[in-house]
Order: sequence, then C-alpha cells, then structure tokens
Amino acid sequence: METLYLSLANKLEDLMQKGVFQAGDRLPSVRNLSHQHNVSVTTAVKAVRVLENRGLIDVRERSGHFVSPRNSRFQSTFEQEREKPVSQPNLVTPMELTQDMAVLNLGQVFPAGSAIPCDDYLPIRALQKSMKWATRNVRKTLDYGYPAKPEFQKAIAQRMASLGVICGPDDVIATNGTQEALVIALRAVTQPGDIVAIAVPAYPGILQALQVAGLKVLEIPTHPSEGISIEGLKFAIQQWPVSACIVIGNHSNPMGITMSDAHKKALVELLANAHIPLIEDDVYGDLQHEGDRPAPIKAFDKTDNVIYCNSFSKTLSPGLRSGWILPGRFARVISTEKYFNNLASSSMTQVVVAHLLREGGYEHHMRFVRHRYRSNTEQLRNLVRSHFPSDTEITRPDGGFIIWVKVPGSDSFELFKQCERENIYIAPGRLFASANNYDDCFRLSASRPIDGRMEDAIKTIGRLQVGMLSHDSSEVS
Amino acid sequence: METLYLSLANKLEDLMQKGVFQAGDRLPSVRNLSHQHNVSVTTAVKAVRVLENRGLIDVRERSGHFVSPRNSRFQSTFEQEREKPVSQPNLVTPMELTQDMAVLNLGQVFPAGSAIPCDDYLPIRALQKSMKWATRNVRKTLDYGYPAKPEFQKAIAQRMASLGVICGPDDVIATNGTQEALVIALRAVTQPGDIVAIAVPAYPGILQALQVAGLKVLEIPTHPSEGISIEGLKFAIQQWPVSACIVIGNHSNPMGITMSDAHKKALVELLANAHIPLIEDDVYGDLQHEGDRPAPIKAFDKTDNVIYCNSFSKTLSPGLRSGWILPGRFARVISTEKYFNNLASSSMTQVVVAHLLREGGYEHHMRFVRHRYRSNTEQLRNLVRSHFPSDTEITRPDGGFIIWVKVPGSDSFELFKQCERENIYIAPGRLFASANNYDDCFRLSASRPIDGRMEDAIKTIGRLQVGMLSHDSSEVS
Repeated sequence: METLYLSLANKLEDLMQKGVFQAGDRLPSVRNLSHQHNVSVTTAVKAVRVLENRGLIDVRERSGHFVSPRNSRFQSTFEQEREKPVSQPNLVTPMELTQDMAVLNLGQVFPAGSAIPCDDYLPIRALQKSMKWATRNVRKTLDYGYPAKPEFQKAIAQRMASLGVICGPDDVIATNGTQEALVIALRAVTQPGDIVAIAVPAYPGILQALQVAGLKVLEIPTHPSEGISIEGLKFAIQQWPVSACIVIGNHSNPMGITMSDAHKKALVELLANAHIPLIEDDVYGDLQHEGDRPAPIKAFDKTDNVIYCNSFSKTLSPGLRSGWILPGRFARVISTEKYFNNLASSSMTQVVVAHLLREGGYEHHMRFVRHRYRSNTEQLRNLVRSHFPSDTEITRPDGGFIIWVKVPGSDSFELFKQCERENIYIAPGRLFASANNYDDCFRLSASRPIDGRMEDAIKTIGRLQVGMLSHDSSEVS
Repeated sequence: METLYLSLANKLEDLMQKGVFQAGDRLPSVRNLSHQHNVSVTTAVKAVRVLENRGLIDVRERSGHFVSPRNSRFQSTFEQEREKPVSQPNLVTPMELTQDMAVLNLGQVFPAGSAIPCDDYLPIRALQKSMKWATRNVRKTLDYGYPAKPEFQKAIAQRMASLGVICGPDDVIATNGTQEALVIALRAVTQPGDIVAIAVPAYPGILQALQVAGLKVLEIPTHPSEGISIEGLKFAIQQWPVSACIVIGNHSNPMGITMSDAHKKALVELLANAHIPLIEDDVYGDLQHEGDRPAPIKAFDKTDNVIYCNSFSKTLSPGLRSGWILPGRFARVISTEKYFNNLASSSMTQVVVAHLLREGGYEHHMRFVRHRYRSNTEQLRNLVRSHFPSDTEITRPDGGFIIWVKVPGSDSFELFKQCERENIYIAPGRLFASANNYDDCFRLSASRPIDGRMEDAIKTIGRLQVGMLSHDSSEVS
C-alpha cells in the first residue's frame, strides 16, 4: 500500500532509529539518495520532505538536511522500556480519577488533553442531510436494530471491504461506541479474574473496560515505532494464562504509533497459535496523516481470531455513539452479550450513519480532517517545544490528534491538579497504566484548532511545569 | 388517587377474590350497591361497567349482573403459588433460546408474543417534529451526553416530579433502554455470585441481566393481584444473603399486576430495613388502562434505597433506546459503571426525546395509546377464550398490552415450536423463570391491532394447542 517515497522515508527513519544516522548527522543529498535507493530524484525529494514534516530532520540553508536533535519518538523511553520486565498480572484498581475527569470535560474547563474531536472537524452538513433523511423515513428508526440495522450492516461491510477486511453484513454487530464494543468483547471471551494482556501506555478506556469486567491486566511494553512488543507478549503468554489481548494497531492512543504490516502479521500469528483472542481497537484508523489508510490488524487474520472494534466517535461525532464489532469466531457469545446488556443500539443513529456512509461524502470529509489534524498536531508539538523544558520529549503521531509528552523528573498528576485550578485539563500519565509508571508523562490533544486559547493554555501548562521543576530543584539544593 | 367508582369496583373485585362473591353469584343491584356503599347510583353503574370491562362479571338480560365463571386473574395458580416454597438461589443458566427468539422477532414471523409496541401506536409525527428540531440544532447532538444531556435530565426530572418522585436534574443518568439500566444497576450493587431476589414469572430480560452479571437468582412467588409476595421475600432475606431485589411495580410483565400503594410501601420498608437495594423497573408505568397513572415504587422511598429504571421503549419507540436511571444512594457506583461500559448514551436520541417531552404532546399521545391497548387487550382475551380449551386461564392486565395464558396440562415450549413452523411467535413460559416452572403458560401481546392477521394467528395457536392436548390424552387412554 505504501508509495515509493513513503517507503523511502520510512526506511530512512528506521536507519535513524537504529542509530545509523544520529542527531546532528547530515543526510545524503537527494541526488545520492536517489542513486543509493534506486528511485527518482523527485521521489527522494518527496521522501526528504516527509521526514522534514515528521520533524525528524532540519534543513540548514545551503548545507543540506541534518538529523534533528529532537527526533525522539521516545527513543530514550524506548531504551528504558526495552529493559523493563513485563509486569505481573494485577487487578485493575478503581480509578475514580478517570470518572472525575470525564465529568470535568463537560464543564467549563479547557480540554487540552481530551481525545474528543472538536465540532469544527465534524461533518455537520452531511449529518444534517442524513438526519433529514432519517426524519422522512422515521419508520426505519422505530424497531430494534439487533444485532444491527441491515442498512448499517451493509454500509459497514462495504467499508471494511475497502480496508481489506472481508465480512458479510450479518457479521456486523452495532454497539454504543468503541468502548461498549471493547467491554462486550472482553466480557464475552473472559471470566472475571482472567488475565488480559495490553500494551502500555494504554488508552484509559481499556483499563476501565478491564476494571468493570473484573479482569487482571498484564502490561506489555510498547516499542516506540512498532507498538506492542512481540517479545514481551511472547514471554507473557508463556508465563501466564492470558485469556485475551487488546491492541490498537493504528495511530495508537496515546503514543500515535502505527504497527507495520509485518508486525501486525506477527502479532496475529502469535496469538492465533496460542488460541488467545486478539481484540483490535481501530478507532483512529481513518485518521492517518499521510499516505494510505493503514490496514486493520483484522486484515491479516486468517483464523477468525481477531475481534474488530471500531466507531465513528473520532470521525462523525462522539455523541452519536455509533460503533460496531466484527466478532470473528466469537459471534455467538458476543451477540448474546450485546443482547443481554442493552438489547440493541439506537436505530436512529444507525440509520443516520448508514445514510451518511452511502451518500454523505465520508471519504471527502476525511481528507479534510486528516489534513487539519496533521497540521494541528505539528503546531501543537511546536508550541510544546517552545514552552517546555529543553529535555522534554514529544511523540510524533502518524495519525490522529494525540501527542504524548514526557518531562523527565516531573510529576504529571501534580501538574494536572495545578492545571485544573487554571481551568485547563491535561490527561496525566497515571491514567494510562494500572501502576503509576507514567507519572512523568501526560497527554495533549490537537483535536481543536491551535488558536489563541490553545496557545495560552500550552503557555500556562508550560509555565506551571517549569515552576514545579525549579521549585523541586531548589528544594533539593 | 382513585376515583369513587374505581374504588368501588376494586372493592367489589376484592370481594370476588376473597370468595365473598363466587362464580355464578348475582351481584347486588346498582340501587343496592349505591345504598350499601354510600355512593350515587351513577357511581355504582360506572363501577359495574368497570367490572364488566374487566371481564369479571357477565350481564344477563333482565336478570342482573353475575360473577363470571372466568373471573380468574390466576386464582388457581395463585393458590398453588402460595404453597410453593421460595426457590433455592441458583445461577441463571444460559438461555440460548431467548436470543434465538430475539432474532426470530426481526424476521418474517408474526410476533403474537413479543412485547414490542406496533408502529401504529407510536407518535410518528411528534417524533418527526423533534427529529427536525434536532437536525436544525445538530450541534447539541455532537458531544458526549454523560451522565446525560442537560435538557434530557431536566425533562425527566419534570416528568418524575409529576409522578410523585422528587429528584434533581443531576440525578438522571441516561441509559440505552431499560435493559441497560437494569444491568448497570445490578452490576453496580452486586459482585458476581451474589444472590438477587426477583418475582416469578419474571420479564425474561431480568433473567438475562442476572445471567450476564453472573448472579444467582432467588425466585419469589407472585401474588396474582398484589405482585411479589412480601412474606416470600421476608422469608428469603432471612434465609439467604440477598444483595438486591428487582421488582416491576406497575403493570408487570408478564402478569399485568400493579402493586397497591400499601404493598409498595411495605416492600420499600422491608428492603430499606434490610439494607438491600431495590431496583425498580417501571417501563409499563405509563400504560394504565384506567384511572390515574400508578405511582412508582420510588415515590415511597424515603432512604434513597430504590434505584429507579425506566425508558420510552414501550411508549415513544423501542428503536430509540432512550432510558434512564435515578440511582438513589448508589449514584457514584452506577454512574461509574455507565461510564466505563459505554461512556454515554446517544446524544441525538436524548435531544430528540427531551424536545418531544417538552413540545410533543406526550400526555396526549399516551391517552390515545392507553385506550387502544386496553381495548386490544380485551379483544385478545376474548379471542383466546374463543379458541382455547375451556379451562384456559387468562390474566386481565390493568395496564400495558401483555396477557399471560395458562393451559392446564399443556407444554408451551412444544406449542412454541409448532407455532414457529407456522411463522407465529409466542413467548413460552420457560423464558420467565430459571427453572421450567411455567411450561403450561405462555405470553401473548396486544401491542398491535387485533386485525384479521391476529385473529388468524390466535386461531392457529388455539388449533395447535387443542390438537396437542387431544393427542396427549389419546396417548394416555
């Protein structure tokens, strides 16, 4: 699926990751790149521009391209992570905090850390058109849509086919968003007390799903460009009886990592051979910043072992609560779990979404927002660079709108509390794992325009952060 | 709340229940009734008409009013039930059957037994008006409605106040229908393996909720006019550690019973004193056939021990999935459970319903459908009388559209299977308890017009039933 220039850009980035090119090194000229990699000069120019856009290289006037000293993608963290052992399985402890923050989001607080798309990036007119259609055809919205409305099933099956996942309309079960899909999938394939493997730092909703289902979490380290560590997972399933594994394959929350096709294949095979169901969360999959839409992990699933979960909460509207599951070989237990939980998902929502997918120019809209999120993310990274300590590390997501910020020596929960007093919300690191392993990290979101308000918010967060650190160091000295 | 004539009618019915007037007895004349009960002749005439409408008395030309030989309301069952012990607590076993039937409903099968309101009785125009409003105000539908959209909370708090339940808007948590409300409430106040008391025969969704939550069920007998047996429940909570109790107080599914205010109070007090949360399902509460809307059990709750669950699935549309919980003293755990399960309920649905409650003439619509369901139910009872064996017993619901039919010596699961071959769905008794205690009973629904198709369906079910019984007796002889 990769174009030639992206392929070259990725190859070069890989060389940087491996330390073949290090911070400050000069890259070969485009002419040399073209020669070495057997591509046209145009392709080499495009590849270099991609690296530039990714913030991995800097241009020095009349000198060429140099590997940026900030080309982190969490390299240092990665080195630490690699040495980290896989955690012992442990029950997810109640995280009252998370819920407090959910309520907070709805208030008058500036949501600098919340992963909710801003209205400006939702297809308002297309939604209105589809709502009008649903109003005229109101009778279609009245009955139970279980396991899903046929028109929704068809629209989803067509969409999945375009992503390389072949399924029949009957395979589609409608859910109340991705979160419900994850909870239902987990409950269907596990018993309370079972162990579930996840990559950390993890989307907090995954930890919440494990908590409500009474499951134990086994935290697997994340490779900063490849995603969940296959070695870590292999080790884990040898040591413990793992009942399921949840993975975000594309533009993960919070680290913004997309697994390579090879990595996806390896993961699918490892779990299929171990007969452990793989629950895929693909909610950011449609939000790549460049190139083609990455394949779902499910596209590599030959044994129906992958349970695919997704929704339109990041693309059409969070308030719709329109999600779905492809249950693979677990169709019977998953559809029962759904039915017994709440019978069916809103038919009105399903009818609106099915019409929008059919008529509403979903792809056209996605091209617009991908562009916006990419540019917002870059702007947000620059803002953080300008207002945070110089050793701050910032992820460069390859899709979506989330960045993960690490300030060595800091306490993000304390920062969260100080920000709250200023009516600003950031998502502190401790939400992203069951142990407080990420207390020097926090999440920010570029899901809204990087306007004056956002600039002020980042300035304020940076000021508070710097203040805390200098206070700490003065106490130490 | 009762009018004079209803009060008299109820008094007379009570006398029949107690055997003061027995089948075939002549009632006092209206003049005598007026004199004895100190009411006007007009009131006495009205009361007699109520009893006539309830099918409890027959008019014989020029002779007066006689107690009907069919004035059952399950008296015989009741006598048996009274002698039945409370069951041992036992885990709800997987009921694959239920789900099969859910799927069945959506197919080309005639839904003679399904408790789903027919489109004819839903307020289509009001829904369209509110959907149009939501379309114009689409931005209100985009964000998460957690714990509920403020406009929905306000509309529900106002509606609850009109039913004698005082709550603040903030107390309202939106759910995806009543089923989700029940499941969330159960999961919030119990641990897997806990014991939950319910009245049987029970709404199958309650058994499903217990099953998904991994709970044990303790089945309490139902008094045929009072609802859950207080003595049975008292005995049960002395014997076993009961963690919660689920009750339908008004127009229960399947027996159509409304608990008296005194019974509701006694139940609330019993459970409050035992510190056992009472989960109330009031989904049929708005569908009384005559008189005032009966009070929710929650109206008698002085200690915030009642968790109130309801939805508009029987009144506005099942496909909306618009329900709510008033969590009482369990607000924290219930709202967390909701959030972790699926974050929020559809904002679009909430906005539409809030507008409809505000502007859509909900009460006006309810007056129309109550009248229809009452008349349909009576017609359906007459049809069953005409086509079933003479010893068949039929409940007379005081609200809603469900009747419960008992054919002594029959096998309703076999009848269900034979009906299925004729593309007719009835709900067999075994769905309504964890043990197969109701295999001689089944549920029918008057939620659609009693037209030629319904008549044909009842004729067919009756023919199959009579055929099975005569086959059985010929085998015995």
